[in-house]
Amino acid sequence: MASTFGVIMAGGTGTRFWPLSRATRPKQLLPLAGSHGSLLRETQRRIASLIPPEQTLVVTSEALAAQTRAELPELPPENVLAEPVGRNTAPCVGWAASVIARTAPDAVMTVLPADHHIADERAFTSVLSRAIDAARDGDMVTVGIKPTRPETGYGYVELGEELAPSVFRARRFVEKPDELRARQFLTAGRFLWNSGMFFFRADALLGAVRQHLPGLGDLLGQYDEAAKRGEELALVRSTYASMPDVSIDHGVMEKAARVAVVPGDFGWSDVGSWTSAWELADHDEQNNALIGEVIAVDTRGSYVRGGKNKVIAVIGLDDIVVVDTDDALLVMPRSRSQDVRAVVNALKAQKRNEQL
Amino acid sequence: MASTFGVIMAGGTGTRFWPLSRATRPKQLLPLAGSHGSLLRETQRRIASLIPPEQTLVVTSEALAAQTRAELPELPPENVLAEPVGRNTAPCVGWAASVIARTAPDAVMTVLPADHHIADERAFTSVLSRAIDAARDGDMVTVGIKPTRPETGYGYVELGEELAPSVFRARRFVEKPDELRARQFLTAGRFLWNSGMFFFRADALLGAVRQHLPGLGDLLGQYDEAAKRGEELALVRSTYASMPDVSIDHGVMEKAARVAVVPGDFGWSDVGSWTSAWELADHDEQNNALIGEVIAVDTRGSYVRGGKNKVIAVIGLDDIVVVDTDDALLVMPRSRSQDVRAVVNALKAQKRNEQL
Repeated sequence: MASTFGVIMAGGTGTRFWPLSRATRPKQLLPLAGSHGSLLRETQRRIASLIPPEQTLVVTSEALAAQTRAELPELPPENVLAEPVGRNTAPCVGWAASVIARTAPDAVMTVLPADHHIADERAFTSVLSRAIDAARDGDMVTVGIKPTRPETGYGYVELGEELAPSVFRARRFVEKPDELRARQFLTAGRFLWNSGMFFFRADALLGAVRQHLPGLGDLLGQYDEAAKRGEELALVRSTYASMPDVSIDHGVMEKAARVAVVPGDFGWSDVGSWTSAWELADHDEQNNALIGEVIAVDTRGSYVRGGKNKVIAVIGLDDIVVVDTDDALLVMPRSRSQDVRAVVNALKAQKRNEQL
Repeated sequence: MASTFGVIMAGGTGTRFWPLSRATRPKQLLPLAGSHGSLLRETQRRIASLIPPEQTLVVTSEALAAQTRAELPELPPENVLAEPVGRNTAPCVGWAASVIARTAPDAVMTVLPADHHIADERAFTSVLSRAIDAARDGDMVTVGIKPTRPETGYGYVELGEELAPSVFRARRFVEKPDELRARQFLTAGRFLWNSGMFFFRADALLGAVRQHLPGLGDLLGQYDEAAKRGEELALVRSTYASMPDVSIDHGVMEKAARVAVVPGDFGWSDVGSWTSAWELADHDEQNNALIGEVIAVDTRGSYVRGGKNKVIAVIGLDDIVVVDTDDALLVMPRSRSQDVRAVVNALKAQKRNEQL
């Protein structure tokens, strides 16, 4: 049986976890889900029972490559691919597919975002196995998450006929819907959240790229040639900026002929904001998540996070987020978690680079 | 005309301004009223037009003596009297009276707490002059503040007959009333807040002490004798702990025969909590007091105070207090300012001395 490779997409520069996340310490490198390691570390650990580290690639930015290698010391250093500039997911996945296909063209790629949280790891592993199996025959496979709310921030995928037990044809992908439509999707029951996890054979993905994104396909062919001469990195540096800024969803999955969906229900979270971090953390009896040396008086539903050698005292707070770091502090209601961007934008406007 | 001395009572160890105030940096040494100097410095500055620095004494604790001298460099160092242990105001004022009476027994003492704020300094100076004049004849004089709310946290003094323009006999002192009574006082109009400012001749005060607090009077007599031999400090060190723990209000003023009140209306605040600090600070258009490098998004009525080299971002807050220091952070609704004590008590229980 052909082998299985992991590809972890870890190039994110999330700003929604400011002030903990910074340009040099983005979300995937932070321990945001309870008392575990970084989200990236957890992502690799979760697939380690199915995919050995030497067959696990991580794509990140040049700026984060060293930290990423340090975070995953089991991986051979060359398995961390460093993008000279941030592009979208199609170039990221395409490049990884090229690298894999050079030695194992029929390997199944398991493509995962680095910054998600999974509560039920046993169920997750089972879904992963099913998706990998479904991809062996050449299908492009995605995992669809059973929606728990009428979310308007995600894309959806509609289930078609059942191809095998718990493997369905993907009837269509739907962009982020408005709230009315999201409610209809939730009621209809055949619409799942597009999880951003993908499974396909390396040769199948490259074939689909050549068909639907020929410019990207050409460039990847040049990378293969350069790799034979040991000159791939130089070519990547000089050409990566010209890669098409397109997602693997739009650029490939939505256009591919044979796309399958494996439904998943394993306590998935994309850890999208401080609200998510609060949801995923351990709570005390007042529903607070208190991290660090916190004295909470008459406080409920709050997320309070500090560092070492500092006391944080909160009195009479309800549903408030307090995140303290050495050089920046954030205080807001939990419901305003999406507005952290406004602060980051203000810092950018003030050119306060030390806090970005 | 006999001279006038100032006595500033600066021994407070206020905890209500935690985390800014600490045992080694109490309220009177903090710049809590707007953009001015420390409350102590402001207190001395306000009386400087009436009383020269060499006639101004400050009574504080031994632990704070050095800081107090540094804060008031115009004062001769020996004018800062250092109490070996914190006692109440009767010993504090009695000791200062003894020191003054050795050279100027008929001097009028202007006794002021170190930690109040005065908005209208011209009106204040005018009241001070009137009170000093009233004290020259031997009356014990207090300043009564026109109440602006049915405050239950202060003592009151009831006005009697008018002795001179804007100088009244004090009919009686009333302890902190319950709310119903406080409302009656506010309506009645003849009850003023006891400001804690006192005016009397040194010899009159010492006579009243000998009469009403004979134990304290005896000890002060011994201090006088020891002072002649240059041994006062040693005697203070060995005996101050045995001083009676009684306030000048209870121990002397309430029992004295001739007590006068000068009403004052000069924007007085005892700067009692973070709520007071917010009230006294400069406000932006959203009624926020922002001190330090603060980014406020959609925030109203809040007091946000930080130090240097740190950004504080607040989003969507209403009437919240955020006070950040290097090793401690406080977040609470403004209305909970009185509960800061609970945090300080928790720190004491945890023996976290570095944050106390």
